[in-house]
Amino acid sequence: MQRTQRHNLGDSFGRAPLRRPGAVGVTGEGMAPATPRPATQSAMRARRAGSSSSQANPLVRAAENARLYEYERGVKDAFDTIVPVLKEISALQHEADFERRAQDIAHREFGFELPPEILADAWIDQLDMRRLYAWCTFHTYRRFCDEFFTQDPLAAVDADSFEGFLQTCGFHTLDITPCADGRLAHLIRYVLRLPHRAVRRKSYAGALFSIEDSLQKWQEVELSRFREGRPNTADAPTRYLKMVSYHFSSVDPHHEGCAAHGSDDAKAAGAGLDLLNGFREAVENSFCCGASIDLLLIGLDTDTDAIRVHVPVADGELSLERYIDALELYTASALSDADRARHDIHDAVRQSAPGVAEGMARLIERLLENNFSQIAYVRAYHGQHYADIGHAERFIGAGVGFEEIQLRNLMYFAYLDTVEEATQDLDVGIKIFTGLNIRHGLPAPIVVRFDYHGNVPGARERAAQRCERVTNAITSRYSDQFERGLLHVMQVVRDCKSDNAEIEVLGCTVNPQVGGGH
Amino acid sequence: MQRTQRHNLGDSFGRAPLRRPGAVGVTGEGMAPATPRPATQSAMRARRAGSSSSQANPLVRAAENARLYEYERGVKDAFDTIVPVLKEISALQHEADFERRAQDIAHREFGFELPPEILADAWIDQLDMRRLYAWCTFHTYRRFCDEFFTQDPLAAVDADSFEGFLQTCGFHTLDITPCADGRLAHLIRYVLRLPHRAVRRKSYAGALFSIEDSLQKWQEVELSRFREGRPNTADAPTRYLKMVSYHFSSVDPHHEGCAAHGSDDAKAAGAGLDLLNGFREAVENSFCCGASIDLLLIGLDTDTDAIRVHVPVADGELSLERYIDALELYTASALSDADRARHDIHDAVRQSAPGVAEGMARLIERLLENNFSQIAYVRAYHGQHYADIGHAERFIGAGVGFEEIQLRNLMYFAYLDTVEEATQDLDVGIKIFTGLNIRHGLPAPIVVRFDYHGNVPGARERAAQRCERVTNAITSRYSDQFERGLLHVMQVVRDCKSDNAEIEVLGCTVNPQVGGGH
Repeated sequence: MQRTQRHNLGDSFGRAPLRRPGAVGVTGEGMAPATPRPATQSAMRARRAGSSSSQANPLVRAAENARLYEYERGVKDAFDTIVPVLKEISALQHEADFERRAQDIAHREFGFELPPEILADAWIDQLDMRRLYAWCTFHTYRRFCDEFFTQDPLAAVDADSFEGFLQTCGFHTLDITPCADGRLAHLIRYVLRLPHRAVRRKSYAGALFSIEDSLQKWQEVELSRFREGRPNTADAPTRYLKMVSYHFSSVDPHHEGCAAHGSDDAKAAGAGLDLLNGFREAVENSFCCGASIDLLLIGLDTDTDAIRVHVPVADGELSLERYIDALELYTASALSDADRARHDIHDAVRQSAPGVAEGMARLIERLLENNFSQIAYVRAYHGQHYADIGHAERFIGAGVGFEEIQLRNLMYFAYLDTVEEATQDLDVGIKIFTGLNIRHGLPAPIVVRFDYHGNVPGARERAAQRCERVTNAITSRYSDQFERGLLHVMQVVRDCKSDNAEIEVLGCTVNPQVGGGH
Repeated sequence: MQRTQRHNLGDSFGRAPLRRPGAVGVTGEGMAPATPRPATQSAMRARRAGSSSSQANPLVRAAENARLYEYERGVKDAFDTIVPVLKEISALQHEADFERRAQDIAHREFGFELPPEILADAWIDQLDMRRLYAWCTFHTYRRFCDEFFTQDPLAAVDADSFEGFLQTCGFHTLDITPCADGRLAHLIRYVLRLPHRAVRRKSYAGALFSIEDSLQKWQEVELSRFREGRPNTADAPTRYLKMVSYHFSSVDPHHEGCAAHGSDDAKAAGAGLDLLNGFREAVENSFCCGASIDLLLIGLDTDTDAIRVHVPVADGELSLERYIDALELYTASALSDADRARHDIHDAVRQSAPGVAEGMARLIERLLENNFSQIAYVRAYHGQHYADIGHAERFIGAGVGFEEIQLRNLMYFAYLDTVEEATQDLDVGIKIFTGLNIRHGLPAPIVVRFDYHGNVPGARERAAQRCERVTNAITSRYSDQFERGLLHVMQVVRDCKSDNAEIEVLGCTVNPQVGGGH
């Protein structure tokens, strides 16, 4: 793949392709980033390891793994190149001809130019590295988004057929709530290998989803079935399936589990189960005529990406103790052929929960088989477990949207309408970035984003107002960091009703004078 | 009606009937309240005037007016008695036997006892009048709510038939957004004489309702028609009717109009019309199969309670210039008989908007005829216009709920989920109460209230958490007033799914040690 060096000098946030295989080379010896990024290290290790071990189980789809890895590596490298390249540029800042040389390096290593006004002021005191770092991170995020929405790099080959499959299993909607932890951001597309546009994802800290919000979604879906026959007509005997994914750490269970539950796995799983049952009860109590939903609970080992599936018994009830461990099944069927391995999964599901509904069992079989590929993915490219078993996010995302975030540990997600309701989530995010960035003198980059329905009059303006309000609340809550240049915010909206619509940058604290003009 | 003096000494927020006709007598000469309450003055004037003039138009329902006035006067007197009685008690605070004498007065004048711990500390320095005033206001609010939810004092005789009437007019839901201004709080039950439980009311500052919230409500209603045949089945040719009421002041148009629109009537009306059209467009764009809604815009003269109705033409379009003035019709038909007066309304509606849909026309006729009674109500009990043409609210209500507030100028309403989204509304409320109370040294009493659906698991706990969060945000935003005892907050929740459920007081800054135990 040729690195493109298309530049748009009139638009400092110009567009250029993001993926740059080979660019990792710039992180050579003596140029380790201030904050070593485990993903980059593991990327290098992965190249050493090759993909020979990814065929450890007959059900593993090695070609798919290679394609997904290529994408993940490209995106993460683009972010992880920022620090070493800026270090290189920093070393030159008091030399003659600094601006031209800096742009040459940026050209070569990033594929884009740096904002001249930041470079031009370096001679007065010193290069404003915090601003430059935030600018590069935001710019890279924008290029990453543009690629995602225009080129659909994570398109699933079975996207169309999945909806039909789901309906044959007895479900017209799959609504998944993972924990908002960045280590679960790849749950849909990587861990479960589901087409990301065919399922609803709504992340919450601790997977503690809002029953009221879910009730609204349930109503929206059911009305759509009645009025428009989408995704199927209301008389079809299918149900809304709500799934929760809690998480735990097999490597460091007492420290790297779910922070919202104090790394207490039983508490994390129990809270998920309670909410699922509460949601079902809410549907049953709020609506007559036999209204109900189906439930599924899974756990994710964030070190290996292996899942546990709590299989519901005949009456749909879930149990915390009754689950299937995908890693055990994966290991047990490693030496089998594909038919035998599938047969083992089939039996395991039914043995785990006698009387499990046939459709539910088939969906779970699919999830387990899909997860085998992800288990192999981690082993092939990262070893027995990820090197970054802890937090290693590149930026914070706050607001509503972020469909493009399907990669692990890329973004710390604070789903919110207001800072007031989400102070805990944001405080945790700032704490994480204090460790990752701020204590090294680098700012925490925050993308404030609100997606809107472009077919609703005034929705864009209201999304822009929300961006502004939330940005003000953030810079006021963390005014100390903000005033010292250790927190930067970019405001973004996107019309989620328009296919392939790119994000729209409304403003950025890096370049306040640019305003809405990026 | 006998004044009851039932006391529950163990529960300082004990229950006793609220309405106390005749109690106004305590506001005798020389005991005018620190903040004269126009309602009390006008109540006295009304008794002088009698109700002889309420039959000025043949369509006026004088008996209904008398009943509604009896209720309004009883509630407002209960609040307006607080200041003069506390003045009387204050004068005694350093006398011997103060506590017993104060309780005797409270007994006699309020019908309830004061918290002994506040009285007991008076000898040390002086009586904490701010705390006592807030306590009395909250206690009176609680008794007012209890009466509302247990005795249904505003029950409408035609409540059951109204839903049927609405459907014969072509509407299965009437969703009304008035301005959140306290001078429109009586819009449903008084100004329009509609049964308050048969219509949806959602108030917003400037009547600037949320299209997204309304879309959700629309979906909820339509789903209920499909699934449960409520309020009618989905195949019935009826529509959802959204009505907005802006307001203006005929007495002081440039100062006492809508604050959110700078007392610019044209701006207030135009903003309402824009939002109505936006909501219809949102329904039409978001849903297929001919989905649409009907719209109605009215204006309220907050000095006379006369409405303007913007009658939609054949295609449902509204115009700012094309409206019927109820006061003109009222005056013109004053000397007619009832049949003739109804005939005049009938003609006026059709002349105003040629081709107006027959059902819409009939609904508007009903609104105009109902409003005639309210015009007469104001004239009979208050004269040519209200004495309190400006703000004269007794307390601030913040949150979601407040179904019991159907009286004019009783409560300043800040509809909100978070303080962050509603800072402007709250700031206006505090500004109003700075004029009414704080500059006299009396606190602004704030009721933070969240209603919840008791059939949804955990909903009560979440409502309680929202109360706590919003209370913290309020006391932190207005910390200066709060720390000086010039702002008090009572936290309240209510199960709105349970008929006749009373409010539940969770905590109060007046008596922090009482906690949830009031």
